[in-house]
Amino acid sequence: MSFSKSVLALTVIAASFSSYAIKDASLMIVDGTILTMNPQNQVIENGTVVVKDNKIIAVGGSELAKEYKAEQVLNVDGDIVMPGLINTHTHASMTVFRSLADDVPDRLHRYIFPLESKMVSRDMVRIGANLGNVEMVKGGVTTYVDMYYFEDEVAKTVDKMGNRAILGESVIKFPVADAQNADEGIAYAVNFINQYKDHPRITPAFAPHAPYTNTTEHLQKIAKLSQELDAPVMIHLAETDREQEEIAKRTGGKSPVQYMADIGALNNKVIAAHAIMVDDKDIDLLKKYDVGVAHNMSANIKSAKGVAPVTAMLEKGVRVGLGTDGPMSSNTLTTMNELGLVGKVHKLANKDRSAMPPITVVEMATMGSAKAIHMEDKLGSLEVGKLADIIVVDTKSPNMVPMYSPYAALVYGANGSDVRHTIVDGNVLMQDRKLLTVDEAAIIKEAQTFAGKVRESVIASGEVVK
Amino acid sequence: MSFSKSVLALTVIAASFSSYAIKDASLMIVDGTILTMNPQNQVIENGTVVVKDNKIIAVGGSELAKEYKAEQVLNVDGDIVMPGLINTHTHASMTVFRSLADDVPDRLHRYIFPLESKMVSRDMVRIGANLGNVEMVKGGVTTYVDMYYFEDEVAKTVDKMGNRAILGESVIKFPVADAQNADEGIAYAVNFINQYKDHPRITPAFAPHAPYTNTTEHLQKIAKLSQELDAPVMIHLAETDREQEEIAKRTGGKSPVQYMADIGALNNKVIAAHAIMVDDKDIDLLKKYDVGVAHNMSANIKSAKGVAPVTAMLEKGVRVGLGTDGPMSSNTLTTMNELGLVGKVHKLANKDRSAMPPITVVEMATMGSAKAIHMEDKLGSLEVGKLADIIVVDTKSPNMVPMYSPYAALVYGANGSDVRHTIVDGNVLMQDRKLLTVDEAAIIKEAQTFAGKVRESVIASGEVVK
Repeated sequence: MSFSKSVLALTVIAASFSSYAIKDASLMIVDGTILTMNPQNQVIENGTVVVKDNKIIAVGGSELAKEYKAEQVLNVDGDIVMPGLINTHTHASMTVFRSLADDVPDRLHRYIFPLESKMVSRDMVRIGANLGNVEMVKGGVTTYVDMYYFEDEVAKTVDKMGNRAILGESVIKFPVADAQNADEGIAYAVNFINQYKDHPRITPAFAPHAPYTNTTEHLQKIAKLSQELDAPVMIHLAETDREQEEIAKRTGGKSPVQYMADIGALNNKVIAAHAIMVDDKDIDLLKKYDVGVAHNMSANIKSAKGVAPVTAMLEKGVRVGLGTDGPMSSNTLTTMNELGLVGKVHKLANKDRSAMPPITVVEMATMGSAKAIHMEDKLGSLEVGKLADIIVVDTKSPNMVPMYSPYAALVYGANGSDVRHTIVDGNVLMQDRKLLTVDEAAIIKEAQTFAGKVRESVIASGEVVK
Repeated sequence: MSFSKSVLALTVIAASFSSYAIKDASLMIVDGTILTMNPQNQVIENGTVVVKDNKIIAVGGSELAKEYKAEQVLNVDGDIVMPGLINTHTHASMTVFRSLADDVPDRLHRYIFPLESKMVSRDMVRIGANLGNVEMVKGGVTTYVDMYYFEDEVAKTVDKMGNRAILGESVIKFPVADAQNADEGIAYAVNFINQYKDHPRITPAFAPHAPYTNTTEHLQKIAKLSQELDAPVMIHLAETDREQEEIAKRTGGKSPVQYMADIGALNNKVIAAHAIMVDDKDIDLLKKYDVGVAHNMSANIKSAKGVAPVTAMLEKGVRVGLGTDGPMSSNTLTTMNELGLVGKVHKLANKDRSAMPPITVVEMATMGSAKAIHMEDKLGSLEVGKLADIIVVDTKSPNMVPMYSPYAALVYGANGSDVRHTIVDGNVLMQDRKLLTVDEAAIIKEAQTFAGKVRESVIASGEVVK
């Protein structure tokens, strides 16, 4: 044996030793139909996703499974494995008011604000957020963007549940449950942001309710503070006739988006919910200022407000994700239930059956939503280095059979209850429909008990309009 | 003791004896939130429904439970008890093609007819119908209206499953899988009708595909035969641009509805699917001739065809029920998944958030659908004497909590998988999500195997346009 030959032999042994050395992992999902939602929208059959701690460390074919030894292995038998859904706009605590007075005209001002002024409390926020968390994790939502009061209470529920959220403390110019005015709201938000800014799964944020329910001065103050504190800002924008009228009055005819741009309140920290009443110029501004848009189809059409021009926004490269809006508006909290509606209603609105194809809808629900919340470096796809927020969707449920196209099956066939496993930050929060971190029955019972109080104090008394 | 007093005493004893005499029943559902869908839309809390053999024999409060001894008792702990859903239009066997080429323009002529000409067989019809039955019974559909080929195969699956159906054998002027022309189709249908006319759960029917895919002569022949054989006639009507154009050409400008009326083909045996492209005059004709209308919102907007003017139809008293259309069109088969879409899209189309309130949507799914199929004397409500087609909907699923309004919870919150029990003709076909009359896993496996053949022979070969 010559010297050169023995070197070669050693090299080969080292190479095969290295490629078969078993590496450690915490969680491995095997035999999945993997929708990576990476830039190539790669789909891997018999695929493997490997997780270590809270990150994805490998994504590939069945051969990958041999390279790792994981503490937990989920064999999903061909089911869809995809990035967790991101609900870019909701008010989770309002679950306790779900199915109340759904179709009242001018409902926000005539019903919801009076109801909230009577019923919102720390307890209510906690009870409602718990129920919202349960519904979202069961429906495959791994991250949600919340806007409400007492957001520190919501934060406690998210901390316990194990899911991920951007939590926006409301700022509004009239008295609400946790602040007498916008200054108090801002102070509450700043305090909350400082308290939670280092939480691994919670991003605290400002939530000015809308342009017309805040003054220019307060909107500008929030824009400034959000930069200083590196905190997102969520706002209802271009949503209602009243908003359009009041902002036009305030500005001598500007649109809400134009107004926000002109006062320096649009930037890459902003997540704008709705953006229904926007023209081409507004869309250009949303693009220019890198604003994220939360598209809430169910809520927008249920309230007869209209269809946001999302196809135009996507063409111009605006960051558009999917949201549900609150449970008095949509009325469910997983964007899985929105997929079909988004796919179909845009076809109707565009009078074009090829508009908004399934892959575009799934993109919006995943990478698009990650972009809308400016977290596309960490979330939205199954790629090495991303946070391990992953869901598994049952493909043997009769409505999902057969599956010629996983995107079409998801958009036109699936509903929230087809989600089988939900993983956030590397932890399995739901396995085979069973929640592992909270007591679902107890949370539901508590919400039902709270609803009994609403019945007594609001409905029976007739204090809130019907 | 005076004579009069003793008579009174005896009377009282007889009365209480009679009211407490225990009566026999086969099935009793107790502690339900009962949506009777009777003419008063009565809702009964802690309610009881009593079934004997295949009929409802009592509906009332909790006291009723003491009067009966039933072979089987379902305590539903406050869950919604309501009439089974009636899917007024589908093509169940097409489940095996679900998620194929969803958004191809002019899909019926460019994709579906060529696909069917290659793949439809007795086997395919049986396999697909089995899957459709599974999905519908699990989704709370107790009766469906089917239009396809080899309907005698579908009939065998319904006979075994235990559900209820109106099965329409297709008649079409060009060669299809089970007939070379309309005459052969009519002969096949007549034979099928004679074979199944006495089945307790199956109503055999004619299904001329559409006005423009049949000649005037054949439509008139079917109208005549349907009277003689007392068989329903289902037809796609006022659905597509092509139909409108071809009928206008055939008639010198008439609408499809006007044409059908003028040739004597509209009457109280007809169930017309879609009715999207109808004007006020057409709606008056549908009312005048007592035609049933199957409203298929998902399919109609997914194909960008438009929104049928259902609010106008309901105002004029037209018999409108809900349908899903086939699984290549909608793509799921329970109208439970349609409720939200119907409620929301009509609000959008009418620019009115109070349009199409939840109670109207639930009415359309139950009594409205029974009227649309001209079976309102037997189905559609929980009333004494009606057939025992009943579903129980989980109200403890997080998306259904709390429930201030059961109608709103159903329309805006529920999806097909919230159905817990399904009862048809007095028999429990699904209990706690488990099917009792068929092997679900085997049926799904068989459909997946068939899909493999479709992949090989249609997709891989590229013989059918993509």
